[in-house]
Amino acid sequence: MDKTEILKNIESLSKLNTDAMVGNDFLLTWDKSEDEIAATLQTAEILRALRRINTSSRVFETGLAISIFRDQSTRTRFSFTSACNLLGLAIQELDEEKSQVAHGETIRETANMISFLTEVIGIRDDIYIGEGHSYMREVARAVSQGHQEGVLPRRPTLVNLQCDIDHPTQTMSDALHLTHYFGGVGNLKGKKIAMSWAYSPSYGKPLSVPQGIIGLMTRFGMDVVLAHPEGYDLMPEVLEIAQQNSKQFGGTFSQVTSMADAFKDADVVYPKSWAPFSVMEERTRLLQEGDRKGLEALEKRCLEINKTHIDWECTEKLMKTTRQGQALYMHCLPADISGVSCESGEVEASVFERYRVPQYNQAGYKPFIIAAMIFLSKFEKPAEKLSELADQAQPRIY
Amino acid sequence: MDKTEILKNIESLSKLNTDAMVGNDFLLTWDKSEDEIAATLQTAEILRALRRINTSSRVFETGLAISIFRDQSTRTRFSFTSACNLLGLAIQELDEEKSQVAHGETIRETANMISFLTEVIGIRDDIYIGEGHSYMREVARAVSQGHQEGVLPRRPTLVNLQCDIDHPTQTMSDALHLTHYFGGVGNLKGKKIAMSWAYSPSYGKPLSVPQGIIGLMTRFGMDVVLAHPEGYDLMPEVLEIAQQNSKQFGGTFSQVTSMADAFKDADVVYPKSWAPFSVMEERTRLLQEGDRKGLEALEKRCLEINKTHIDWECTEKLMKTTRQGQALYMHCLPADISGVSCESGEVEASVFERYRVPQYNQAGYKPFIIAAMIFLSKFEKPAEKLSELADQAQPRIY
Amino acid sequence: MDKTEILKNIESLSKLNTDAMVGNDFLLTWDKSEDEIAATLQTAEILRALRRINTSSRVFETGLAISIFRDQSTRTRFSFTSACNLLGLAIQELDEEKSQVAHGETIRETANMISFLTEVIGIRDDIYIGEGHSYMREVARAVSQGHQEGVLPRRPTLVNLQCDIDHPTQTMSDALHLTHYFGGVGNLKGKKIAMSWAYSPSYGKPLSVPQGIIGLMTRFGMDVVLAHPEGYDLMPEVLEIAQQNSKQFGGTFSQVTSMADAFKDADVVYPKSWAPFSVMEERTRLLQEGDRKGLEALEKRCLEINKTHIDWECTEKLMKTTRQGQALYMHCLPADISGVSCESGEVEASVFERYRVPQYNQAGYKPFIIAAMIFLSKFEKPAEKLSELADQAQPRIY
Repeated sequence: MDKTEILKNIESLSKLNTDAMVGNDFLLTWDKSEDEIAATLQTAEILRALRRINTSSRVFETGLAISIFRDQSTRTRFSFTSACNLLGLAIQELDEEKSQVAHGETIRETANMISFLTEVIGIRDDIYIGEGHSYMREVARAVSQGHQEGVLPRRPTLVNLQCDIDHPTQTMSDALHLTHYFGGVGNLKGKKIAMSWAYSPSYGKPLSVPQGIIGLMTRFGMDVVLAHPEGYDLMPEVLEIAQQNSKQFGGTFSQVTSMADAFKDADVVYPKSWAPFSVMEERTRLLQEGDRKGLEALEKRCLEINKTHIDWECTEKLMKTTRQGQALYMHCLPADISGVSCESGEVEASVFERYRVPQYNQAGYKPFIIAAMIFLSKFEKPAEKLSELADQAQPRIY
Repeated sequence: MDKTEILKNIESLSKLNTDAMVGNDFLLTWDKSEDEIAATLQTAEILRALRRINTSSRVFETGLAISIFRDQSTRTRFSFTSACNLLGLAIQELDEEKSQVAHGETIRETANMISFLTEVIGIRDDIYIGEGHSYMREVARAVSQGHQEGVLPRRPTLVNLQCDIDHPTQTMSDALHLTHYFGGVGNLKGKKIAMSWAYSPSYGKPLSVPQGIIGLMTRFGMDVVLAHPEGYDLMPEVLEIAQQNSKQFGGTFSQVTSMADAFKDADVVYPKSWAPFSVMEERTRLLQEGDRKGLEALEKRCLEINKTHIDWECTEKLMKTTRQGQALYMHCLPADISGVSCESGEVEASVFERYRVPQYNQAGYKPFIIAAMIFLSKFEKPAEKLSELADQAQPRIY
Repeated sequence: MDKTEILKNIESLSKLNTDAMVGNDFLLTWDKSEDEIAATLQTAEILRALRRINTSSRVFETGLAISIFRDQSTRTRFSFTSACNLLGLAIQELDEEKSQVAHGETIRETANMISFLTEVIGIRDDIYIGEGHSYMREVARAVSQGHQEGVLPRRPTLVNLQCDIDHPTQTMSDALHLTHYFGGVGNLKGKKIAMSWAYSPSYGKPLSVPQGIIGLMTRFGMDVVLAHPEGYDLMPEVLEIAQQNSKQFGGTFSQVTSMADAFKDADVVYPKSWAPFSVMEERTRLLQEGDRKGLEALEKRCLEINKTHIDWECTEKLMKTTRQGQALYMHCLPADISGVSCESGEVEASVFERYRVPQYNQAGYKPFIIAAMIFLSKFEKPAEKLSELADQAQPRIY
């Protein structure tokens, strides 16, 4: 994208209504209006294009961004840091072990204490079903209250870096990837995407990616097919959302019980392991009770059940059954690649390798998606502000 | 505060003598002159006001700030990061476990090795009695020597983020809070503040807050009353300082043995748990000897003694006995709140909740207090520099 | 150095060919041409001088620098952070335990995932013989491929912060120190430097410093003498390089088996402990096999052999045998100082103390050496860019 195209994109962004994003969080994609989803994708594109022509999009002279990782993270951690740095914010991680949070301090108090000069809080909390999203809502309420009470001069924006329900920075990056792949968000309409469970030798992977995918892709009028073995259900409320979206946006949402059915004539396939919702609930209970024996028994039982579905693998053979044998393979990474990172896994090595570069590109959108989420929560007239940045053309590297 | 008021404050700051702060540390409030204390409060106010009108107070284009936390920290950690970021410095934590400090490297050497491009070193070291302050002095001597010897192009400023003796970033924030509350530092004169021990189910809390409070508040001509059960003494040298201050600054300093006596007609109450000085000494010895059995025995014994003072709780009933039943409740946070964070604690839930917002505001001054300490150690003419910042009016958010 | 001298240095830098450094890594000094080595030293000098006259050398408005420490580090960690901050980059550490690297993710994938907005990757990986350098090469290949494939908009520069073979940020700082000491890099020719093994009560220290020293100092036409007890060999391929260099650059390289022989008439002495190459190989194998018993046995055996060489100590008596009894003592720090950090160690306390300030200065060059390595990998015309910085004279502290 050269500068002319950037300005054209800014022009089209200016027509979208993003008023409600200002001062607000990005927790679930289905909380966002169509304009807001479109504006996030477009802003990400513009920020990415500005950086490619060495134009700084630093909008903060100083300011803090806080990350709270309650689970391991590589790409999301670096994406968040990159996004904040791109806008001029410095990262401070809240390491709950080094803090006094363990001391019995309330979430409300901690949320305020870390936010006096803070612009953004990014949270990953995806391990316990029924917990992550609730925790984020509680932090959001706390900083809203703090702001209303005059404790916080500015209300920090929350960005969901993966919870038990949704993984919006991932799925929005996925959507931007699809937009590039199909040459425009309008072209997603009618395309078939297979969100399929796949076998992995590990266990307990979050539901947030498949849930996020069916919750978001149904908004673009895609034909979304969800496939998984019996018992590997997602949260019913998200299925409901996918159903509603498909009606509202003129696509379809259906469920099948084999990968083969899902892959048939698919334009896009997204094979990925996850744990059944009911297991995640049980696991959450056992973790909270500190029942180690119970956890071990559950893991053993689940891995055995898992093994009975070892044939849920994204193979070359299955790929051949997709639209012209050419479906786009997607994964949020890291994938369990058969013969590479495990004996039998989610995907055959040759399929993975063939789509490696597109996948890396898919991941590369994430810093800009996060930056867009922050940007839109901070500026009432984002198009004007981006226009200023483009005009000033302050080099990122001098 | 609008810009006119900011300029008025800068004008009044310009009359204070802060020469001796340049190139110097902030370790104990009683090492500082009246002008220096006043200038720190005023500079914090000005920096806070500048930020509220979106004026950048970034004075460093690049430069490092180092934090060394030898104990857990949330609010001080984030305050320090926020303060440094506000001025343009980047944080690098010295994690002693990841460093070669354990290798037997001397403090003098480490202090120099981390300081080649460093402007500030913030240290929390509050666990061992007789250690924290000494450690800071040793680091201070090391960087002074390094600077004199030409090893360090600039001498980094040390900021005490809590030691065994004082907690100046906390107590100075408390003082700024009181100044706001009573409408000016001059109005503190004659006000009664009750620094009282309170029961907590935990054990071994540092003495630095009560010591810091009696050492600082006696300088404003306040009537400072210290209350604690028998045996819960503070360090004698700090009592001596409070005594001297009270004479010099026209207030009073007295000690009582019940919370009720202390609270009677108080304008401000600060009920907080701490461990007896003699216990802290014994604990320090046992920790250094690695005597785990001894430590357990000590903890058990102390918790039992503690329990005999379970009635030292800041209750609604006691609050009614304060000046017009309206004393300001203060705490450095996190507090042990009865029925919330523990069964029986320092304060009744309804008292805490009623003063929650003021307390959060109290904590909110800390980033600016720390920034002021750094600022005054760096600029020979701080008022001129602040004036420049106000005039340039570089926006913090573009 | 005042501004006139800085400009003179920039002028002389402009005559050196650094074309091949652009977009390239700094892994081994012997991979670099004479011009490149000279340019690195000179750029470090200029950056250091600019900072001393309070001129900012910030060339990045935003951008990330990543550090990967697979071993403990204090001075290199702070040097790397300082260097990156000096140029305007923000640090994000890759903590492999907190990331999904352990998940079986490939190096290629991780390297790309963390590099979307990354300018520099600094790596310390010095524990396993045959591993560190290979790992760096693999990361380098991964980001090159990622850049070629269009995944990475810019190829991050790798800086070797110590591997199993070389420690270029250390030895280049040492070289800059020697240049200052002897009044110009030209004056190093013919000077005798003794790189000698020394006794330490610890075991398993990397070979990278002695190897780096003989590999680099032979390039300045120095008379390099390597001394160690029987069995404490370095990697044969590095001895070969030292030999070749000595021929090519008109110096000498020889090996002796006593510290006394090495010190005789030396201008510079560098006494330092290391583990024998063959032991490091065995240790690497045992570590990889997780053979704890074997490791303990090896350590015990080695410490016993070590003890038979307890007389390899840099004493005052030995120092008297150097050129006019005045040789410069060097160490990469931290040193094992007899009677200070251990009972018997590498150096007598009085020798160490006498050379303490020069050693600290030696360490103080490291941030600028690292900054120079990064700088030269980023700008096609480094002299022009430095000239711009000098002319703009943007203050570092406003």
